[in-house]
Amino acid sequence: MEAKYPSESACIMTDLVLPGETNPLNNMFGGELLARMDRAASIAARRHSRRVAVTASVNHVAFNRAIPLGSVVTVEAKVSRTFRTSMEIFIDVWIEDRESGIRTKANEAIYTFVAVDETGIPVAIPQIKPETDLEKERYAAALRRKQLSLVLAGKMKPNDATELKALFSN
Amino acid sequence: MEAKYPSESACIMTDLVLPGETNPLNNMFGGELLARMDRAASIAARRHSRRVAVTASVNHVAFNRAIPLGSVVTVEAKVSRTFRTSMEIFIDVWIEDRESGIRTKANEAIYTFVAVDETGIPVAIPQIKPETDLEKERYAAALRRKQLSLVLAGKMKPNDATELKALFSN
Amino acid sequence: MEAKYPSESACIMTDLVLPGETNPLNNMFGGELLARMDRAASIAARRHSRRVAVTASVNHVAFNRAIPLGSVVTVEAKVSRTFRTSMEIFIDVWIEDRESGIRTKANEAIYTFVAVDETGIPVAIPQIKPETDLEKERYAAALRRKQLSLVLAGKMKPNDATELKALFSN
Amino acid sequence: MEAKYPSESACIMTDLVLPGETNPLNNMFGGELLARMDRAASIAARRHSRRVAVTASVNHVAFNRAIPLGSVVTVEAKVSRTFRTSMEIFIDVWIEDRESGIRTKANEAIYTFVAVDETGIPVAIPQIKPETDLEKERYAAALRRKQLSLVLAGKMKPNDATELKALFSN
Amino acid sequence: MEAKYPSESACIMTDLVLPGETNPLNNMFGGELLARMDRAASIAARRHSRRVAVTASVNHVAFNRAIPLGSVVTVEAKVSRTFRTSMEIFIDVWIEDRESGIRTKANEAIYTFVAVDETGIPVAIPQIKPETDLEKERYAAALRRKQLSLVLAGKMKPNDATELKALFSN
Amino acid sequence: MEAKYPSESACIMTDLVLPGETNPLNNMFGGELLARMDRAASIAARRHSRRVAVTASVNHVAFNRAIPLGSVVTVEAKVSRTFRTSMEIFIDVWIEDRESGIRTKANEAIYTFVAVDETGIPVAIPQIKPETDLEKERYAAALRRKQLSLVLAGKMKPNDATELKALFSN
Repeated sequence: MEAKYPSESACIMTDLVLPGETNPLNNMFGGELLARMDRAASIAARRHSRRVAVTASVNHVAFNRAIPLGSVVTVEAKVSRTFRTSMEIFIDVWIEDRESGIRTKANEAIYTFVAVDETGIPVAIPQIKPETDLEKERYAAALRRKQLSLVLAGKMKPNDATELKALFSN
Repeated sequence: MEAKYPSESACIMTDLVLPGETNPLNNMFGGELLARMDRAASIAARRHSRRVAVTASVNHVAFNRAIPLGSVVTVEAKVSRTFRTSMEIFIDVWIEDRESGIRTKANEAIYTFVAVDETGIPVAIPQIKPETDLEKERYAAALRRKQLSLVLAGKMKPNDATELKALFSN
Repeated sequence: MEAKYPSESACIMTDLVLPGETNPLNNMFGGELLARMDRAASIAARRHSRRVAVTASVNHVAFNRAIPLGSVVTVEAKVSRTFRTSMEIFIDVWIEDRESGIRTKANEAIYTFVAVDETGIPVAIPQIKPETDLEKERYAAALRRKQLSLVLAGKMKPNDATELKALFSN
Repeated sequence: MEAKYPSESACIMTDLVLPGETNPLNNMFGGELLARMDRAASIAARRHSRRVAVTASVNHVAFNRAIPLGSVVTVEAKVSRTFRTSMEIFIDVWIEDRESGIRTKANEAIYTFVAVDETGIPVAIPQIKPETDLEKERYAAALRRKQLSLVLAGKMKPNDATELKALFSN
Repeated sequence: MEAKYPSESACIMTDLVLPGETNPLNNMFGGELLARMDRAASIAARRHSRRVAVTASVNHVAFNRAIPLGSVVTVEAKVSRTFRTSMEIFIDVWIEDRESGIRTKANEAIYTFVAVDETGIPVAIPQIKPETDLEKERYAAALRRKQLSLVLAGKMKPNDATELKALFSN
Repeated sequence: MEAKYPSESACIMTDLVLPGETNPLNNMFGGELLARMDRAASIAARRHSRRVAVTASVNHVAFNRAIPLGSVVTVEAKVSRTFRTSMEIFIDVWIEDRESGIRTKANEAIYTFVAVDETGIPVAIPQIKPETDLEKERYAAALRRKQLSLVLAGKMKPNDATELKALFSN
């Protein structure tokens, strides 16, 4: 399988915040945004792997900015690193001011997907080749995040997590 | 107001066809696609005008290809021509084969939106400047479509529809 | 197959405008109305043909009046003309004032449906016999609309569209 | 306030059973049908009273027939009896066979609505005048049902429920 | 089959009232609550019978208190009595004040479910053994309700409804 | 403000997996489960703080087991640790086998919520007092997770994250 660039499978999902998707402060529900990011990320994962891709974990999501009712929200999902059968997907969420047209970053999230065959068994996927500086930076950090999630799940000893350990030692 | 290019306000909405959106043949409901195209078109209209934009008419939609459950559907909406307060939006719908990754055109639609202020009164909008060949062709055809819709609505006499009349005379 | 009257397959769909179906001006989303009209039209098409009916095109929809949140909306769909395997469906949309009870016309739309068998292949359908004056008028205009849509799609030469051409010549 | 006929406020809601509305046996969820009947009944109550109408109780609903996915379901709601501020609404649910076109009764339900002003306070409503035999029969039975519900709620002594008591004596 | 206690199959469903679920007075739609109660009751019925359970009837629902948008609503469903293949389910609905934390009863409902096999045929179920005083009281009243519903449906003569008749005689 | 026990604000949300909530393998969409967990966690946060609570971050979610269409899913959300204005919520997701009645753990997630006043400004909240062994263990781990998220966000230097650092040194 030939390696691919992140831009080949990137998914852009632009949509409105509808009235049925808001909380009591009239901002978009966290849960609704999590669902949209999951769909966008699954499309990027599927485009990269050309397989059905299922959510394996949500590694981190920060809700930095409230997204008001009626906003135009752009969810951009890109494969940031591949492992044998799994992919880390980095998701950026943007909103734009209607009058000025200025776009600002609202959220950021990291999901992991696994490619599976029709019976649900994980299958090997092509590698990713980061191109831009941001893609390279996220690619490098993905290994630390993977070790971290293995450590937190008790599946790797902290001392074997070399990438991660380096962060805390000096 | 300065004229703008279609690419400045184009809206890309990529999403899955979910199980709740299919008809008895397990293909996407026409009505659900009409709703998605309406949202994508309203975002393009709003980005161009920097105003709230409301649907004025759906001029034509052809459903050429069924879109099966689970498909990745990309709706691309672009302003094709502007009038004083209204915009014609051209919408292309693409689906992609999961295994080969090949994209094919599934549908095409033309909607008209009006820019309004907070009280719902139509307001003037910037002009559009077509750039690509396809944009120019759609820009030219938009005038014929406008005359046609005025004729069909009884608001213009057929003989005043010069662009349209030319089509039928020789 | 015996010809049928439009009233035999007419579909009446009365329902409320719910909070999740409104735009930022608190009026019903164009897209939601398009979806309801599609469902009502598909029921009329199915009743007439006694087949599964799928949306072939939306010929024209005019959004003349905003429909506020909480309105009672009545969508009436009737077969206006039949061709070999396809049907033109005319849709009238009414809203009513709660206090006075007065009904007013909010929108009008024309959809085309094709009757298909279980594998999606088009099948022949019974003819329609218009009864009322309005039904007869819409029946006559349907042929012009069909020619127009063939001309616009490049499937008929303008000069062969005799019904349509008559409109522009004198 | 002038009395009105049931036919003046009857509500007909015809719609499809969509995939998101079915249970594990692929039939319409009881809960979804309850919700549709509530909306249809509230429209009939609102048309009769020309007021906002809120659900006061569901007196009885029998689910006699399963309604399969893709069915065309017609919900007909009619005011069967009025009290000072409340209305009993009788709801008949029909499904139709696509191939034969034959309609069969699927369910029957009785809801009670109260007319309220903008602050939620109950307000007096016009009386109903039953016309057809079925309307007269349902009108008569409504008083027994009202007594029954008062008795069950402990708000009326069984011996004061004269209409009801007659049913069990001799 | 061994008899079971109501607590073994009780279902607690706590959720928010979302914006898409409210009526024009900004309170939860009766229909939405009916649908939630149906789902909660079907879970209790399924846990008790370990079978698919389908709604047979809604015997009585009183909407005593409006439930405002944003409320936390707790629906508690418990088997109140079993018959051969059917179960009466008693449902209590609670809302809580956000600031004081105080819970108040909002509604009460009684549904009947039938346990079925994969082909939809009713199957015998375990008996229920009421434990608490409230459970015992509801168990006793369930027989009267069953007779009542048979009498109203014309399937039992009033004079054979011994439990019910006792209520009206002295 | 008096400290509270986790059990005082725990939220139990039991519901079915409906057909509109599944992916192409007929299992519950990751996104839909994320949305349910968000609502359950927000209720626990709100009960503890007696304030509106908004999602600040999703720290970690592992999707260990697919959840098939029609499953009964129980989402249990409990406050695991409080900070000045924010709360960590631990969420356990269970599914149960219909025939045997056996419950198994399907997922686990950790969300952080912030309590806000009506204008969206963070406000101080009561402390939590863990009771059970599991609650105490999660309480202790929460500090490490908080440091980790500050480190990953670049808001804390790795060497200041004393709890976390201890994990990697010896």
